[in-house]
Amino acid sequence: MGNSFGKLYTVTGFGESHSPAVGAVIDGCPAGIPLSELDIQPQLTRRRPGQNKYTTPRNEADSVRIVSGIDRGVTLGTPICMIVENTNQKPGDYAEMVPAPRPSHADFTYLQKFGVAASSGGGRASAREAIARVCGGALAEKILGAWFGMEFVAWVSSVGTIDAPEVDRETITRETIDESMIRCPDHETSEQMLELINNTRKSADSIGGQITGVIRNVPVGLGQPVFDKIEAILAQAMLSLPAVKGFEFGSGFKGSRMTGSQHNDLFVKKGETLGTATNRSGGIQGGISNGETIYFKVAFKPTATIGTAQMTADYDGNEIELIGKGRHDPCVVGRAVPMVESMAAMVMMDMVLQQRATNPSSLKYREA
Amino acid sequence: MGNSFGKLYTVTGFGESHSPAVGAVIDGCPAGIPLSELDIQPQLTRRRPGQNKYTTPRNEADSVRIVSGIDRGVTLGTPICMIVENTNQKPGDYAEMVPAPRPSHADFTYLQKFGVAASSGGGRASAREAIARVCGGALAEKILGAWFGMEFVAWVSSVGTIDAPEVDRETITRETIDESMIRCPDHETSEQMLELINNTRKSADSIGGQITGVIRNVPVGLGQPVFDKIEAILAQAMLSLPAVKGFEFGSGFKGSRMTGSQHNDLFVKKGETLGTATNRSGGIQGGISNGETIYFKVAFKPTATIGTAQMTADYDGNEIELIGKGRHDPCVVGRAVPMVESMAAMVMMDMVLQQRATNPSSLKYREA
Amino acid sequence: MGNSFGKLYTVTGFGESHSPAVGAVIDGCPAGIPLSELDIQPQLTRRRPGQNKYTTPRNEADSVRIVSGIDRGVTLGTPICMIVENTNQKPGDYAEMVPAPRPSHADFTYLQKFGVAASSGGGRASAREAIARVCGGALAEKILGAWFGMEFVAWVSSVGTIDAPEVDRETITRETIDESMIRCPDHETSEQMLELINNTRKSADSIGGQITGVIRNVPVGLGQPVFDKIEAILAQAMLSLPAVKGFEFGSGFKGSRMTGSQHNDLFVKKGETLGTATNRSGGIQGGISNGETIYFKVAFKPTATIGTAQMTADYDGNEIELIGKGRHDPCVVGRAVPMVESMAAMVMMDMVLQQRATNPSSLKYREA
Amino acid sequence: MGNSFGKLYTVTGFGESHSPAVGAVIDGCPAGIPLSELDIQPQLTRRRPGQNKYTTPRNEADSVRIVSGIDRGVTLGTPICMIVENTNQKPGDYAEMVPAPRPSHADFTYLQKFGVAASSGGGRASAREAIARVCGGALAEKILGAWFGMEFVAWVSSVGTIDAPEVDRETITRETIDESMIRCPDHETSEQMLELINNTRKSADSIGGQITGVIRNVPVGLGQPVFDKIEAILAQAMLSLPAVKGFEFGSGFKGSRMTGSQHNDLFVKKGETLGTATNRSGGIQGGISNGETIYFKVAFKPTATIGTAQMTADYDGNEIELIGKGRHDPCVVGRAVPMVESMAAMVMMDMVLQQRATNPSSLKYREA
Repeated sequence: MGNSFGKLYTVTGFGESHSPAVGAVIDGCPAGIPLSELDIQPQLTRRRPGQNKYTTPRNEADSVRIVSGIDRGVTLGTPICMIVENTNQKPGDYAEMVPAPRPSHADFTYLQKFGVAASSGGGRASAREAIARVCGGALAEKILGAWFGMEFVAWVSSVGTIDAPEVDRETITRETIDESMIRCPDHETSEQMLELINNTRKSADSIGGQITGVIRNVPVGLGQPVFDKIEAILAQAMLSLPAVKGFEFGSGFKGSRMTGSQHNDLFVKKGETLGTATNRSGGIQGGISNGETIYFKVAFKPTATIGTAQMTADYDGNEIELIGKGRHDPCVVGRAVPMVESMAAMVMMDMVLQQRATNPSSLKYREA
Repeated sequence: MGNSFGKLYTVTGFGESHSPAVGAVIDGCPAGIPLSELDIQPQLTRRRPGQNKYTTPRNEADSVRIVSGIDRGVTLGTPICMIVENTNQKPGDYAEMVPAPRPSHADFTYLQKFGVAASSGGGRASAREAIARVCGGALAEKILGAWFGMEFVAWVSSVGTIDAPEVDRETITRETIDESMIRCPDHETSEQMLELINNTRKSADSIGGQITGVIRNVPVGLGQPVFDKIEAILAQAMLSLPAVKGFEFGSGFKGSRMTGSQHNDLFVKKGETLGTATNRSGGIQGGISNGETIYFKVAFKPTATIGTAQMTADYDGNEIELIGKGRHDPCVVGRAVPMVESMAAMVMMDMVLQQRATNPSSLKYREA
Repeated sequence: MGNSFGKLYTVTGFGESHSPAVGAVIDGCPAGIPLSELDIQPQLTRRRPGQNKYTTPRNEADSVRIVSGIDRGVTLGTPICMIVENTNQKPGDYAEMVPAPRPSHADFTYLQKFGVAASSGGGRASAREAIARVCGGALAEKILGAWFGMEFVAWVSSVGTIDAPEVDRETITRETIDESMIRCPDHETSEQMLELINNTRKSADSIGGQITGVIRNVPVGLGQPVFDKIEAILAQAMLSLPAVKGFEFGSGFKGSRMTGSQHNDLFVKKGETLGTATNRSGGIQGGISNGETIYFKVAFKPTATIGTAQMTADYDGNEIELIGKGRHDPCVVGRAVPMVESMAAMVMMDMVLQQRATNPSSLKYREA
Repeated sequence: MGNSFGKLYTVTGFGESHSPAVGAVIDGCPAGIPLSELDIQPQLTRRRPGQNKYTTPRNEADSVRIVSGIDRGVTLGTPICMIVENTNQKPGDYAEMVPAPRPSHADFTYLQKFGVAASSGGGRASAREAIARVCGGALAEKILGAWFGMEFVAWVSSVGTIDAPEVDRETITRETIDESMIRCPDHETSEQMLELINNTRKSADSIGGQITGVIRNVPVGLGQPVFDKIEAILAQAMLSLPAVKGFEFGSGFKGSRMTGSQHNDLFVKKGETLGTATNRSGGIQGGISNGETIYFKVAFKPTATIGTAQMTADYDGNEIELIGKGRHDPCVVGRAVPMVESMAAMVMMDMVLQQRATNPSSLKYREA
């Protein structure tokens, strides 16, 4: 259970780090959308490890194959299954020989929950499950871009205690962000972050960070009252990502320090409709999009796998010294950027389909 | 859409601030649970406004009536409908005469989404929808208490810029918390908060705050991998509450500043099983409970309704000065405490039923 | 569990025969639909017992109250809760004193399933749960009538071994049907049926029957491939009704006796589009509506409650003679007609919302 | 939408007849179940065409590969993806060149619904989608057999107007059934059916038939009141199969001809519990299993593809003579037997998980 996301645009992921393949089945995609593997591969490649010295040295090809749901280059309205073979399994690397649950990993909880354990230790608690997210998200953002010009851009806004300065949420692009190895658009900060990560690697440790995301050109009226507010589903989406410890949108935690007169977004005329002079609401009011840019921040803890010795307990409760082996990233936030974008796109795609169901005429599409 | 929460323990809320009634239908409650209105009323009363001078002067009775699903004092395993009549409607108070969308309210987005507006302005965007949450949560916490001794306790940890000192998560009780008008268990901080709120009221403004919640005596193994991790569903639950801007659990945003060697929770023998020496994981690893206390923090923005004049725009885009009228709370966090507890209880109840479905023998119940 | 029907237009029923009230919460209803109790009451009244000497003498008022989701006469797009108080409970009539599970009732299975039993014996297995269906269906058919001119008409096509002659599916109306006490539109057959029912009552027995239903003016393209074909969801809907033993649509069981050349519906030009010369497909091809009239048949077993002595076993397995007491219908099919129509309307409403979600421009609405 | 079946044991199918692969993702399977391709392949092979001269001459290998969810021979509790490559695609055979919608096929409705058409004409309306059902069902019946000794057996009870005599529902086995080419356990009837099918093939026509199914050793208490009664979900399951026109269980349509005193099943002591002396209820009372054998019948129309010329209309409404080409079965019911068994197994697996969620102690497992 728990491997499907979305009510109408439903992405069901499958696969463990050591299974023959990982992938996703996407149900609810409208028909007639031009689609090929070339639409999905770029985001998959962006999340791939082994791209540079700052990330894990594993070189996973992550080549996606679409095995259903398209015909003559367009979607059929039927389930789209996307598969990535796990070509670079090295079962010996990981937990098989580990005589104890790795601290802050899922080894202990998976074993308790299921009564059995994958040879990799954590089963679905693998970075490779993110491939399903990226498959589902890349397709969603293609559609939303075509229909509304909707854009999903995320970047690293902090690594450890190094914070990037604010960027212009309305203009920042993926191209600018990808100029940085760590996907922090501020050049100077990016260099500092990379140095910190490099030092962390040398000390066989890991480091956390934060990602900021924006969603632009959002139609007014998306989201549902009460339990399926946009921010609620976005929060679920982001907290479902491995290693995430927190989520905030708009004014976020700082907003709780303010007064109403400081915080309220006053309405102003914007073109044919209303907008807000400020955007502390983060583009969402009463759980429903107001047309302003949605923005949010996601906090990632440091990776649990470290090369440093840790005094912990084995499954019988005996003290044991554990030293992490195998390939690992000292800092995952750079690679997590496309995952954040993908989850955001899946959320918005579902919200658009929901709005079409109950009030289709409220949506204005881009000129073809 | 979006008015049901939970896959197996499903709470469907209904009602607007000006409709004849509000309430909830709870489907999926096991049979044979002793239940009467007396089990629900206390939490409803705790969230009631009008309890003291610091909250809204409306005196809503909020007297709950259970109209189905119980017979001779126990649940039947059938849907339980709980209803609270809206006895204190004052339609004239609110938005009916308001010629403009209230800033940072749901008036504008609801109208855009639905094409019609409730006379109260925001429809379901009403504090009264929380009654459904409390109904569903009060029942859930009763069951979880009986089965596992599970406890749900939340309190106000900040108001504006005033932060309460850390409290002992393992021992803090609702009784202690309710000794404070603002539900902050530290006496001195509580006084400061109340003074700040009083001053805020005098200046016809409002102020935000934060709530910390804990869940104790959680069985190991609850939660689902990937999309339905406990923290993901808790995040959805909390962000679905009105005015919430952020959520974090365990080490939270601060955890993203740390290194892996600082952050990892080392395992130690605890009784017959393993526990962790520290609890930066917040009781959840890989999305699944590890038996330690779950804790989290929720940020609430200041209430949008303020008595101060605001220069905003009417529906046609003309500038207009708006002064909020009617009854309102300068600070809602005290009343939000039972809502936070209730949402947490609903999440955990659903997770327990899910775990029973796939691995029932993993759960150990309390001695009867 | 199992008390909600529909994915987007979701009707959640509640209430037992002896609970204070029964009702439904309808989520997913579009906003701006004119609605009052007057739209619902007529179908509720049609399913009411006590209308004539051929049905049960209980006179239940079944007066519906809408307590949420409407404002100033129109729907808000929020959940609509409809409640009917159980004013005529006579707890002593039914199973309380019954020392044994009534044959072919739900007493035994409910007790085994839930471990507890309602004082009425069967809990939700009560004719009164149908009120939720009628509430949800009456609203659905109002909307579908306004949007597409869709019509839902059902009638009694057999009682016991008495079959009515075929009627014209394209023109038969509820008015014609309601001229018959037993809702069989053929006058002569109706008289025979009523005589049979009367004789059955005299012999303290009960008798089964069949209902035929049609759905007219169905837009092309409704329904989903594979698991959510229209006929599949219709079948679930009908088999969920109490006492139903079978469902067929189009050529039905007889169609399985035919050859392809006899059975295939050839296409012909109909106005601007294609139709079929015959309609053995029953308006559905590949699970999707083709624009022709949908028709189907539902078989109801005889009511289990009879006044005749039955030799059966008590809960301990001892032989016991049981004589049914209390009020009961010798033949329920006449009253079941609005339930069949209501379930059909709920199915089609959900299908329409689903089609809007993925391909809204495929639907053509009636001129306003 | 509509490509997933089951609430807790969820089978999501994918693939068209001409896509690279077809398959299923099964979420909700408990962990620790021994599983390999060898558990699935036999049922897949049973539904394979090309096994004998009476079925389609296509020889599809249908070799299943499990690419996730198992490790060291047991299930992990994570999603199980099973894939069958479409190795024998012959795109030229089917509808590509067809200038008109094939009568009683899904070509017309799919095009209307989706606005695009698969080159095979019907997209998911392909016999190959059944592979997902068999994958999901074969796993389900393995688990239910191990836990409860539950058995699923279906056979052909009529072809055209040839009816097989009643068989003993309590003892009939798949082995006996598979001795017949057409899967009719009565030897003489089987011969007549095969002769009819052979003659039908010679006249380039097709013929319908009926399948009877039984489910034995069903625990008491499965199924949900109201909308998710066992018979309702079984009906959805069966009507979701291609070409199905009707479903009945227990006394079925004939039951509607009976009186209550004829129809009621009287209780008798059976071992430690109660059973019924007769079983017109078909093992289900009030939507919930009573421990007796569940039995039902499913009607299949004749295949729409026939080799005979048909006067129909093209997409523009012009008259056209169409002659079906390519490979086709004159009678699909023999091959549909494993599909019926598989759908029944998926339904019961879901019901078992649901019952475990709310009342796990009500279920008694087989001795290991």
